[in-house]
Amino acid sequence: MNDCLFCKIITDEIPAEKIYEDENTLAFLDINPINPGHALVIPKEHSRNILDITSKSFSHVAETIRKISPAIKDAVGADGVNIHINNEPEAGQVVFHMHAHIIPRFSNDGIKMWQGKEYDENEAKNIAEGIKNSLDF
Amino acid sequence: MNDCLFCKIITDEIPAEKIYEDENTLAFLDINPINPGHALVIPKEHSRNILDITSKSFSHVAETIRKISPAIKDAVGADGVNIHINNEPEAGQVVFHMHAHIIPRFSNDGIKMWQGKEYDENEAKNIAEGIKNSLDF
Repeated sequence: MNDCLFCKIITDEIPAEKIYEDENTLAFLDINPINPGHALVIPKEHSRNILDITSKSFSHVAETIRKISPAIKDAVGADGVNIHINNEPEAGQVVFHMHAHIIPRFSNDGIKMWQGKEYDENEAKNIAEGIKNSLDF
Repeated sequence: MNDCLFCKIITDEIPAEKIYEDENTLAFLDINPINPGHALVIPKEHSRNILDITSKSFSHVAETIRKISPAIKDAVGADGVNIHINNEPEAGQVVFHMHAHIIPRFSNDGIKMWQGKEYDENEAKNIAEGIKNSLDF
């Protein structure tokens, strides 16, 4: 897309610290890293997020995530990695070209995970039914 | 694996609110949801996490994430979704069978996103070089 920041990184109109590229995907460092080595994986075919990406395009993204995550972890000496995909503004998406974050994690890096809650009685069952009813394939 | 909680959910030895199942993957509600409808997608073939999962198994997980995320969002009336995969204890992994979280998000649900930092001069370039050197394919 003409005005898409990440499309412009793909075409080198905007610079980025690229770490991996193949026919269908590109990976580069996030300029505001949660930890050093924090990378983004994007499809070359433009999509907004998980809600509109094609099966084929997302399969390419997934394979690149799987291939480069161990290398990122090793290169920065991390103990683990988080994979994050934020979809829509309410979920923290800021750039509207589908992207997966690969975030190296270190013991005692002080980053807090989100906290889970508990379901009330029957709440989980009712929600599960609602989701199953929304699956139209 | 004999002692794996999620393998036992696959074989129905342990109950769960299942929302989707196919030959290679299973999705069910997280019992400690960050928001209602918070689901987990797992491969039926056991792996620990993104660091050891096979390409084929992860491709099945990715396709299930893509297929069911819109249905989860619609069913609970969410505005967006986060996809999270935690790999290794230092990244918040608690159950050691690869799993992806699909987390419905709502305007003003009060959940804080992690905050990014800034790289020092040349730091990003040096880290990118290190990662590229660690890619052995």
